[in-house]
Amino acid sequence: MKFELSDSKMFKDCFLTVGTIIDEIIIEADNDGLRCKALDKSHITFVSLEMDYDFFDSYECTVPEKLILDSNELIKVLKRCGSGDRLICESDVSNFILRYDGDSTRSFTLRLIDTDYESPVPPSISHPVSLDLPVDTLKDFLDDISLFDENVHFMVDADYLVAMCSGDTGDAICKYIHGVSVDDVYESRFSINKLKEMLQAKSLSKDCTLSLGDDLPLVLRLESSMGDCRLEFLLAPRLSEE
Amino acid sequence: MKFELSDSKMFKDCFLTVGTIIDEIIIEADNDGLRCKALDKSHITFVSLEMDYDFFDSYECTVPEKLILDSNELIKVLKRCGSGDRLICESDVSNFILRYDGDSTRSFTLRLIDTDYESPVPPSISHPVSLDLPVDTLKDFLDDISLFDENVHFMVDADYLVAMCSGDTGDAICKYIHGVSVDDVYESRFSINKLKEMLQAKSLSKDCTLSLGDDLPLVLRLESSMGDCRLEFLLAPRLSEE
Amino acid sequence: MKFELSDSKMFKDCFLTVGTIIDEIIIEADNDGLRCKALDKSHITFVSLEMDYDFFDSYECTVPEKLILDSNELIKVLKRCGSGDRLICESDVSNFILRYDGDSTRSFTLRLIDTDYESPVPPSISHPVSLDLPVDTLKDFLDDISLFDENVHFMVDADYLVAMCSGDTGDAICKYIHGVSVDDVYESRFSINKLKEMLQAKSLSKDCTLSLGDDLPLVLRLESSMGDCRLEFLLAPRLSEE
Repeated sequence: MKFELSDSKMFKDCFLTVGTIIDEIIIEADNDGLRCKALDKSHITFVSLEMDYDFFDSYECTVPEKLILDSNELIKVLKRCGSGDRLICESDVSNFILRYDGDSTRSFTLRLIDTDYESPVPPSISHPVSLDLPVDTLKDFLDDISLFDENVHFMVDADYLVAMCSGDTGDAICKYIHGVSVDDVYESRFSINKLKEMLQAKSLSKDCTLSLGDDLPLVLRLESSMGDCRLEFLLAPRLSEE
Repeated sequence: MKFELSDSKMFKDCFLTVGTIIDEIIIEADNDGLRCKALDKSHITFVSLEMDYDFFDSYECTVPEKLILDSNELIKVLKRCGSGDRLICESDVSNFILRYDGDSTRSFTLRLIDTDYESPVPPSISHPVSLDLPVDTLKDFLDDISLFDENVHFMVDADYLVAMCSGDTGDAICKYIHGVSVDDVYESRFSINKLKEMLQAKSLSKDCTLSLGDDLPLVLRLESSMGDCRLEFLLAPRLSEE
Repeated sequence: MKFELSDSKMFKDCFLTVGTIIDEIIIEADNDGLRCKALDKSHITFVSLEMDYDFFDSYECTVPEKLILDSNELIKVLKRCGSGDRLICESDVSNFILRYDGDSTRSFTLRLIDTDYESPVPPSISHPVSLDLPVDTLKDFLDDISLFDENVHFMVDADYLVAMCSGDTGDAICKYIHGVSVDDVYESRFSINKLKEMLQAKSLSKDCTLSLGDDLPLVLRLESSMGDCRLEFLLAPRLSEE
């Protein structure tokens, strides 16, 4: 496998986000592109990252490969990639090599982890509501709610997506006009910290798609404007009894 | 009581400053506007904040009210108000409600504290010297002096406002030409930390007015350009024996 | 001794850098300018700073002087010099006085340390290789290598300056085309932290000169564009056995 990117921003952001959620990154590569699917250690967040071959300036993978990398090692090396650097990645039998080409050439060789994981299969859920909103609005809502609670209570009705909480010292209610057709009222609760972890991949898209139901897992989806890079999260709800 | 502000910057800065000095904020509202007068726990700083009804875009208060709020709760909610948000505040019998209107609507409800405080009355002092200087200059002086001492020694003579100190490892002397008529030399000493707390309300005005005397409490006054928002501090001096 | 500078940036940067490496700064001044030569406490880095009389807007020193200052005290006072301030320095028999003239006048008096040090004499080394590279490139290389090791392994061959390391979790190799004539291959190792300390004086020059050999001490040299301010470091190598 070998691929190149002249603008590494999205690639970097996606893997930094995935790497903060899961400890070991499993990259599956074939002719179509890269896929990275994983469940976090606490089994609360399912992550799915897909980069099609045409997301890259050049991409080559004749034989399907599975690479397993330590997230912390990959993160610290990716952070060294400057905004003007060309990124060239390559794998050999026991290493993943990242090269940054700018005024100078800098190469990093990371050892592959030699375990065999099965990529997890996410549950298939059909959500009654799916709506788009700006990533920054969702971020604001989470920061607002976190003043009084560590969980956010989402409610969707005919007009609004509502994020709310009621704490000892105060309440917060945030409303966004969603503009889609919703026939009922749906409510569910989630960990704010888990949601914040997902919103780091901000260079991918200004908007995100949120799918919700009654006490159902939430799906948060970010997609590049060309559709060739997709990052999706499935997050288990907090039950009302908690 | 209900009021609105399209630009919340000054309102935010004033209450953030007052809130870091005192633990519980007492807002007295009537037809003329808001007043907030308080003495800090150590009885060293007296704070007075006045916002006239015409400081607000709209203001309504038919019956005089007294609201008591926890400073930390108010501060964390005020910090969530974005620069482009319209601020709408309202009180009911047991809550103070802050609403931020932007692309979305975000409401925060804070519980009122149910105690009855008497607003303190500040001592009436007539100062021999009153002079204007840029807030940034005063800030620089305090940062300079804090290299060698935790108190600042102010001296005013015919030409200069002088801030100085003499420490074990060095001395610092800062001079500003005050441009007012001063007939004698006046000296007094103050806690630098207490003075720095007051200078956070920087959006209110570029300049401040400083009133000084011989071992007298200092008065520091910040005022909006329209004169409809006034923030005043009275600070007890450190005596030379200390 | 008395000197003035309308732009204090380089002066500040040079002494901040020297001050973080050595505990007590010895300034020797005469008709030609200032010199400051010192060995750090661990005897690993030798520092030499030279500022010619024409580096200053005005400079006067009729009798040679030797001033010894506590680095921490000098650093905290230098940090208070604003970018728009005119710097005026003066010595008397027991003090070094720094004055910052802007909208106001701020003076700092630092006590001289009353010990007599002999300025150390650096070893005279003839290096087989001397090359120029951007300070930022060298910084990037050191940050890259520090991901996997605390020492950097430099190698110079006919074409490249190479910085590299091999760690447990990964390797890094950084290459820069040096553009000078090198007849052999030279290798040496150095502490990354010690090198990073030297690169703070970034306002002095975009490029630095690096002199290297086989297990020889390294010389790093920064020079102002006019050549009137020179900062040079000599750093002992880590031996391969370490």
